[in-house]
Amino acid sequence: MGFRLTPQENSFYDLFAKSASYLVSGSRELTTLLGVPHDEREAVATRMREIEHAADEATHAIIRKVNSSFITPFDREDIHGLASTLDDCMDMMDAAVDLIVLYRIGDLPSGVSDQVEVLSRMSELTADAMPRLRSMKDLSGYWIEINRLENQADQIYRRLLAGLFNGDFGADTLTIMKLKEVVEELEAAADAFEKVAHKVESIAVKES
Amino acid sequence: MGFRLTPQENSFYDLFAKSASYLVSGSRELTTLLGVPHDEREAVATRMREIEHAADEATHAIIRKVNSSFITPFDREDIHGLASTLDDCMDMMDAAVDLIVLYRIGDLPSGVSDQVEVLSRMSELTADAMPRLRSMKDLSGYWIEINRLENQADQIYRRLLAGLFNGDFGADTLTIMKLKEVVEELEAAADAFEKVAHKVESIAVKES
Amino acid sequence: MGFRLTPQENSFYDLFAKSASYLVSGSRELTTLLGVPHDEREAVATRMREIEHAADEATHAIIRKVNSSFITPFDREDIHGLASTLDDCMDMMDAAVDLIVLYRIGDLPSGVSDQVEVLSRMSELTADAMPRLRSMKDLSGYWIEINRLENQADQIYRRLLAGLFNGDFGADTLTIMKLKEVVEELEAAADAFEKVAHKVESIAVKES
Repeated sequence: MGFRLTPQENSFYDLFAKSASYLVSGSRELTTLLGVPHDEREAVATRMREIEHAADEATHAIIRKVNSSFITPFDREDIHGLASTLDDCMDMMDAAVDLIVLYRIGDLPSGVSDQVEVLSRMSELTADAMPRLRSMKDLSGYWIEINRLENQADQIYRRLLAGLFNGDFGADTLTIMKLKEVVEELEAAADAFEKVAHKVESIAVKES
Repeated sequence: MGFRLTPQENSFYDLFAKSASYLVSGSRELTTLLGVPHDEREAVATRMREIEHAADEATHAIIRKVNSSFITPFDREDIHGLASTLDDCMDMMDAAVDLIVLYRIGDLPSGVSDQVEVLSRMSELTADAMPRLRSMKDLSGYWIEINRLENQADQIYRRLLAGLFNGDFGADTLTIMKLKEVVEELEAAADAFEKVAHKVESIAVKES
Repeated sequence: MGFRLTPQENSFYDLFAKSASYLVSGSRELTTLLGVPHDEREAVATRMREIEHAADEATHAIIRKVNSSFITPFDREDIHGLASTLDDCMDMMDAAVDLIVLYRIGDLPSGVSDQVEVLSRMSELTADAMPRLRSMKDLSGYWIEINRLENQADQIYRRLLAGLFNGDFGADTLTIMKLKEVVEELEAAADAFEKVAHKVESIAVKES
């Protein structure tokens, strides 16, 4: 019988994969929110909240595991940092959904769909990359693509704000202020995904 | 005669305790500001500025001590990081006070008092936890409670902004913009307290 | 013949110096932008974009070098962190230029020139300090001065926003919102320069 790593050691990767899988579910709810009638948004927000809670649990499971493990696959601090940055992505997507409902926003400019599309792609790439932490191989494609998508998100965000401010969407000042909060939260989510990629890159650099 | 750690080694803890004690003083001035007539706010801001300067001095004392000590109780970088994150809490509470005076804001919505109450509690918990860095024991209660308070602060903040935007406070657009700056600065202070707690948690994880 | 460090080892310092030199070029374009007629701003923005791309290339050259070097002059993570924080300074100055053009902003309040003057000084100090990373000597003057400038930037920023909100500039609400975005981006650039200085300070602390 060959040598096998203990299940304990392996499961950090499983926990990261689980944590990132919630990002995929969360970004799907975000996409759903944009398509449903306004009076069904609250129901989407409730499901989003549940996903956010489950993601929170996954983050805490990682932290607890770090604190109780004698050996960890990479630096304790890095595990800590990666877990909490993944959590930030979720928190910000959840916040965007929450704000759309709380601010009783009506129609959303089409640029918001573009932002959400980028976040969906980022979620999938991130969930897809997590299992590769085990071998630390084939990760550079992931972080290069995330960086590219973050630049794209940045362009969408700036043009969207410029459009709002220059009256393209025909909204009154208070509505512009509300929409600005939402598009900023979505942009912050894209930034958080980039931070996850930077974290993964710096772990890979250290461990290589 | 028993063995005793040298005073030099001990005093890092004293310096952190001192630094955090300014946060308690600062949060008290914040609370005072909300209760005094508008024309007495400038006097509160002056006292706040003095506390902020004293806190700055405490931060620099820690940095100087790190640079000149041969042995430090935990990683130099972590001492550095903790000191500057504590300083951020102070800076942000000071900034909020400054903005209220600078923007010549009149009445404040009641949600601002709720934000300040959470910051007061966070200040006390943080000041209370610093001496326990020495033993690295009984700290988990502190960071769990700070996390809980930060979630509460987040809820207050979002509902407060939603209320402002939806006209609950009956303010004009420019006043809403000014109030938004103040509540955002207070929310940033709550985030900074959470970062202090994360820092303490990650130091405890490393040193355990 | 005396002992000489290999060119490979040396060139990290050269790369950091190069990266920081783009900040000087970028801050010069920012200054130019404030002086040209509005219809020449787009041309400045185009040159700024080119500088930003060149700076990006310099950042990636550092990252590639870290990944392929067996020996590095200081911690891989710190090299990584310093490179990406330098990049943030550039990105934020570029974003400010971009926003001024995108939002079709007319005249800018004089406080914006004060912000840009501080950024120019910060760029020069930073470019000037990079070669001293080699000896890790005479760096404290640099970070002390950057901290002082950042405090000054903070004062300018707050007074500028207060002036905008209190009607000193006589702008309508939407114009105030646009100008706010620009002054915030410039303030974020000043913060990023301070983060570079903190990074240099913490590297110096570790290596000493």
